[in-house]
Amino acid sequence: MRTRKIALLGSTGSIGTQTLDVVSHDEHIEVVGLSAHRNIDLLEEQIKKYHPKVVCVMDETKAQELSRRMASQNLAVEVTCGMEGLIAVATLEEAEVVVTAVVGMIGLLPTLEAIKKGKIIALANKETLVTAGDLVMETAKAYNVPILPVDSEHSAIFQCLRGNSHQTVSRLILTASGGPFRDYTKDMLQNVTVEAALKHPNWSMGSKITIDSASLMNKGLEVIEAKHLFDVSLSQIDVVVHKESIIHSMVEYIDGSTIAQLGMPDMRHPIAYALYYPERTMTSYIPKLDFTKMSNLSFEAPKKDLFPCLQLAYDALEIGGTMPAVLNAANEVAVEAFLQREISFLQIPEMIHEVMNRHICISKPSLEEILEIDKWARVYSRQEVAKL
Amino acid sequence: MRTRKIALLGSTGSIGTQTLDVVSHDEHIEVVGLSAHRNIDLLEEQIKKYHPKVVCVMDETKAQELSRRMASQNLAVEVTCGMEGLIAVATLEEAEVVVTAVVGMIGLLPTLEAIKKGKIIALANKETLVTAGDLVMETAKAYNVPILPVDSEHSAIFQCLRGNSHQTVSRLILTASGGPFRDYTKDMLQNVTVEAALKHPNWSMGSKITIDSASLMNKGLEVIEAKHLFDVSLSQIDVVVHKESIIHSMVEYIDGSTIAQLGMPDMRHPIAYALYYPERTMTSYIPKLDFTKMSNLSFEAPKKDLFPCLQLAYDALEIGGTMPAVLNAANEVAVEAFLQREISFLQIPEMIHEVMNRHICISKPSLEEILEIDKWARVYSRQEVAKL
Repeated sequence: MRTRKIALLGSTGSIGTQTLDVVSHDEHIEVVGLSAHRNIDLLEEQIKKYHPKVVCVMDETKAQELSRRMASQNLAVEVTCGMEGLIAVATLEEAEVVVTAVVGMIGLLPTLEAIKKGKIIALANKETLVTAGDLVMETAKAYNVPILPVDSEHSAIFQCLRGNSHQTVSRLILTASGGPFRDYTKDMLQNVTVEAALKHPNWSMGSKITIDSASLMNKGLEVIEAKHLFDVSLSQIDVVVHKESIIHSMVEYIDGSTIAQLGMPDMRHPIAYALYYPERTMTSYIPKLDFTKMSNLSFEAPKKDLFPCLQLAYDALEIGGTMPAVLNAANEVAVEAFLQREISFLQIPEMIHEVMNRHICISKPSLEEILEIDKWARVYSRQEVAKL
Repeated sequence: MRTRKIALLGSTGSIGTQTLDVVSHDEHIEVVGLSAHRNIDLLEEQIKKYHPKVVCVMDETKAQELSRRMASQNLAVEVTCGMEGLIAVATLEEAEVVVTAVVGMIGLLPTLEAIKKGKIIALANKETLVTAGDLVMETAKAYNVPILPVDSEHSAIFQCLRGNSHQTVSRLILTASGGPFRDYTKDMLQNVTVEAALKHPNWSMGSKITIDSASLMNKGLEVIEAKHLFDVSLSQIDVVVHKESIIHSMVEYIDGSTIAQLGMPDMRHPIAYALYYPERTMTSYIPKLDFTKMSNLSFEAPKKDLFPCLQLAYDALEIGGTMPAVLNAANEVAVEAFLQREISFLQIPEMIHEVMNRHICISKPSLEEILEIDKWARVYSRQEVAKL
C-alpha cells in the first residue's frame, strides 16, 4: 500500500484525535498539516508525534505562543493562524486527502478551497453539506473530487453502495439510536434536564451533537447530508430507530435486497474507511462484532410527533436554498440555550420552527449569502431566546 | 436492459417454478430450454406459457407421452429424454445462462458440460459444489465462466462482496435459522418425530432440505459450497444462528466492517439476482422488508454438540477429495431413512459419521470417481440402515 499524505483540520477535537489514533496504527499515512482552535498544548504534542509541515491555530495569540514554543525547541514547523492559516493547511501542496474535522461554519471555506486544489475530502464537518450542500457538491463535481463521508451512518451507506449502480438504489435507510428519550412520552419530554439529555446510550460525543441526538436533529442533519452525498430524492431517504447502533445504516435496492453495514460503534471505523478508500486496511486495534454475544437488534419508526426536529430537517431540505442553513443556525443557538438552561428541551424545535418561518429563502445562494444568512439566523435566534 | 436467454434444468421443482415466476414478471428473460423429471402435466403448461425450443423429460416413457401431446397440439418443441437430453438442454446454443435447479447428482454432468460451452451457471443444485466443488470450480475457471449462486445465503454473501477485493475479506458469516429444534435439549432430540422435523419456521421447502435444516446439515453443506464459491479458507467461514432469517448472510472485512444482506425470506430474490447479475431489476411483486414491523433480530452460536452434522461437514471439507461426496450421499440415505421412520433423528449424524469413517478418501477425484464413490456411499449407507 502506498503512503497517503493528509491534512487534518480540527486535530484536537473528538474526530481529530481519533483520526490521529487511526494514523498512529499504520505506517501508510503521513500527516502534513494540522489545525486547532486554541488547544495548543495538545497540538504541540501532536506536532512532536506526527511531524506536520504546517499547522494553524485559529486564535492568533495562541498561535504566537505556539510559534515561540516551536522556536525554543528548534522544531521546524510553520505556524499559521486564522482563516488564512486554515486555508493554507487545507490547500497544502503535499496533502492528497484533507480531513475536515473542524466544528461549525468555519469548515466551509477551507473545504471549498481544498476541493478547488483537487484534494480528496474526508468530510466530518456537518455544516459543509447541511448549509452549502448544493454549492459544495457542484464544486466537487466540477473539480472531479470525491467527498468521502466520515461518520458512521454515511460511511455505512457509502459502503453499502459499493459496486452497485446509482439507478438501482431504491432507498437509503439511516439508522438512529433514538437517543436517551426514545421511549419518553410528551409529558416526560416537558421536563427533561440537560444532564439527562447529555447521556447518550451508545456513542461518546460532544455535548452539542449529543443533544442533537436526543432531539433527532442529528438524524435530520444526516438526512440533509445524505441527500447531497448520494444524490437521491428526499422521498428515498428513510430513518429507522435502531437503538443498539450496530447496523450503522442500509441501502435498499430496486430488487428488494437490502445491504447493511454493521460494526462496533467506534468512529475510528468510518475514519479509517475514508482514509484508505477505496482500499480497506486491517484495523485489529478496534474490537470486532461478536454475533454470539450480541443483544437482539431492534427497529422502530421514529416518533416524528414527539421529536419534530426530524421533520423540520426534511422540510428545510424540501424548501432547499438557504433554509437548511437557517435550520442549522437556529438549532445551534437553541441547543446552546438549552445547555445554558435558558429554554426547555421542547422549545428547541419550537424556536427553530419560528426562525425558519421568518426566513425568506434564497434558492441558489452563493457562499457569501449562506454565511450572511447563517449570521442573520443566529442573531434572530438569540433574540428569540431573549424573549422567552 | 437486453434480453437474456436461459435454459432451466428442473423446471417443475420448487426452485424451477419460482424461477419461472420471476421470468413471468419480466420481459427481459426468454426461456429456450426446460427439463423435468417426470411431471409432464406441469411441463406442458410451462411449454405453452414460455415457449422453449427444447425440453427434456428424464423419464423416457413420460417423454414419449409428452412428445405425442405436443404433436397432437401442433406445438413446435423438441422433446428429449434422459441424461443425453438433459445435457442437450444444458448446452443449447441459444442459452446464455443455465439455471441448474435439478435435485441430486444428476445435476453434475450437465453443469460441467454447460460450463464447457461457456454458459453462465446459475447454480441451485447443491450436489454440484458439495460433491465436486474442486472439479467444477477449476473447470469454470478454465472456461472463464461465472458460477452464480441461487440460494439465499450464498447470494447474500455474493452481494456483500460486490465492489470489494478478495484479499480484504476476513470472514464469511453464514446465517442459519437453526431449524425447528433450535432450542431443544439432547433429551428432547432423542424423540423428535418426522412431523416435527418437517415444520420449518421460516422457509417453505422440500422435505429433504427441511430435515437438513433441522439437523444443521443444510448449513454444513452451505459451508462447503461457500468454500468453493468464494475461495476462502475453512477457518474463514463461520455459522451464526439467526432464527428470523432476515439477514441472509454477511461478510466481515479486515477493517472490522461487516456487510450484511437482508430481505424477505423469498427464493425469488436470489433467483432474480442471479438471472440479472450484475444488474439488479425491479421485483415489485416480492414484498419488501418493513423495518418498523419487524421483530427483533437475534443471533447465537450454533450448538455443534447437539447438531453434529455441522461439524461433520467441516470435517469432510477439511479432509477434502471425495469425503464431502460421501458426507452428502450418507446424509441423503440417512434423511430418507429418518423420513421412512427407519432411524431416529439423532441417528442421522451417527450414520454419516460411520460411513465417513469407512471411506478411504481419494484426494483429486475425477467426475467418474466421484459418481462411483457416491454410489458406494449410498449402498453402504443403506446396509447400515438395514443393520439398525
